[in-house]
Amino acid sequence: MPSFTVFKGTKDGYPKKSITTRPDQLKGDQVYTRITASGLCGTDLHFKHVDMVLGHEGIGVVEAVGPEVKDLKKGDRVGWGYEHDCCARCRECLKGNECYCPERAMYGDADLDQGSFGSHAVWREAFLFKIPDGLSDEAAAPLQCGGATVWNALRAYDAQPTETVGVMGVGGLGHLAIQFAAKMGCRVVVLSGSGAKRDEAIRLGAHDFIVTDQMELKPTFKLDRLLVTTSSMPNWDLVLPLMAPGPLGIASGNLVIPYPPLLQAGITIQGSVVAPRRLHRQMLDFAALHKITPVIETFPMTEEGIREAMQKLEKGDMHFRAVLKN
Amino acid sequence: MPSFTVFKGTKDGYPKKSITTRPDQLKGDQVYTRITASGLCGTDLHFKHVDMVLGHEGIGVVEAVGPEVKDLKKGDRVGWGYEHDCCARCRECLKGNECYCPERAMYGDADLDQGSFGSHAVWREAFLFKIPDGLSDEAAAPLQCGGATVWNALRAYDAQPTETVGVMGVGGLGHLAIQFAAKMGCRVVVLSGSGAKRDEAIRLGAHDFIVTDQMELKPTFKLDRLLVTTSSMPNWDLVLPLMAPGPLGIASGNLVIPYPPLLQAGITIQGSVVAPRRLHRQMLDFAALHKITPVIETFPMTEEGIREAMQKLEKGDMHFRAVLKN
Repeated sequence: MPSFTVFKGTKDGYPKKSITTRPDQLKGDQVYTRITASGLCGTDLHFKHVDMVLGHEGIGVVEAVGPEVKDLKKGDRVGWGYEHDCCARCRECLKGNECYCPERAMYGDADLDQGSFGSHAVWREAFLFKIPDGLSDEAAAPLQCGGATVWNALRAYDAQPTETVGVMGVGGLGHLAIQFAAKMGCRVVVLSGSGAKRDEAIRLGAHDFIVTDQMELKPTFKLDRLLVTTSSMPNWDLVLPLMAPGPLGIASGNLVIPYPPLLQAGITIQGSVVAPRRLHRQMLDFAALHKITPVIETFPMTEEGIREAMQKLEKGDMHFRAVLKN
Repeated sequence: MPSFTVFKGTKDGYPKKSITTRPDQLKGDQVYTRITASGLCGTDLHFKHVDMVLGHEGIGVVEAVGPEVKDLKKGDRVGWGYEHDCCARCRECLKGNECYCPERAMYGDADLDQGSFGSHAVWREAFLFKIPDGLSDEAAAPLQCGGATVWNALRAYDAQPTETVGVMGVGGLGHLAIQFAAKMGCRVVVLSGSGAKRDEAIRLGAHDFIVTDQMELKPTFKLDRLLVTTSSMPNWDLVLPLMAPGPLGIASGNLVIPYPPLLQAGITIQGSVVAPRRLHRQMLDFAALHKITPVIETFPMTEEGIREAMQKLEKGDMHFRAVLKN
């Protein structure tokens, strides 16, 4: 039985090299992939103490395919993200919202012997995404979870090109949300705790930049939609008055928010996870067409490289997404 | 009673200078505007033999306002288009689709003593549009009908940033449709009778360019939507197979189209006029934000200038929209 290298969480939080075996014969629509790159996501930090293979922003090259694989073949470049399987028969699956399937297999819950920190992985073809030619492996990796998450917050809830979209936070998620919304034609307003990232946000496509801890917060426009990509919550008393009736997308963090202004202004709070496959595919095509490129720092796919990247992310110093490379 | 210059259609089709008087006292929400620029549209050619003031892509500066005017004041830059009034109480008006109001006042049907070929005009404030700072008078003029028409075909029927949008024809309407759709994030495919305008279409934002009279019409994608901006109809037998199920917008011309492929492919044919005011406003803001600029040739607002522009448009030589300037 062939085996390959993976990196798993440990009690002390320093990921350790380990071995996973693959079946001699791939079954069903299983695909055996050689990993070339993986993004590092905040969620990976949550699991660093768990005995499981880490990583869920994988990019690789197909090495072998099972007997029921239909579209992929050896040599194809593929990506995968947070979700690995679903029941394919519940209401949510039949609506194309398989990320809300009660039997979904998600990172951290299922397939703990597979990941994207390692040399190889075995996944179902049904949950692999062909990478468009215009996207490099390094650029495609952070799109598999970070990109899919902000894309879903925009596209699953019908953001329109004529909207003013607020993006709170310029980090791993926020810097992708700015690019996607700008290329969709939206007026993009970044809300940030300080002015430090103003120039970069504008370069990524933002039209306006607001420093949220400044009391002179009196813009002349209203936000049709606000994507909250920060883990700490903003001062809602300052932020809510900026909003027109409409959606407020919460991508992370605990929600503590004053109640009366929500009701009076007709604001919707919308939780959102990663994208279902139909939107994930759209996202990759859109990124390739518009040359949307994550801003990344690369690290080697080794125990040391992973640890260094995790520590930098924990300190909040990542600019903006780490990519581990084999 | 003050009077001002206008240019009217004549029996021989050569527009003639004439005089319109304005009331000494403006009534209701009437606004008296000094015209600075006007686009020339194909529809103006239809009325060149009629004894009416020509022009419906007007830009001007407010000179005086009636007693019920609320938002406009002397010195404001405004634009107006094809529609001048509506009943404000029928179902379509209450839905914000006043361009389908049965009592609508449209160019060629009502207010025949007013237009945009002339020195001044009197219009209701309710049908004037403030011009955003980022748009020059010359750029804003062709947007008042041409821009509004293609914008409506895209936005009133929910074109999405993830769609592949076909634009048939690169002219007064088509060259604006390309820019709008590209800035909305769509993949834009131009269909044209020859390759002559390929470079310009790409420069305006098109991603692909197809010459429709070439038999080797075998692109690898499907069009989610096709805007037909040409007055002559294409070879539908070649064009229909390019389409995914979805809308086909017909902006002009008589429709003669083979029936079976429409049914089998689930294609929708959607007629579309100019934009209602809510979309017209959006269109101006979007054009200013994204610096969408009509490609124009300018002519003086004189009998000779108007005649020269009309003759060039009739010959099909305009590149791409004429603007008459005072």
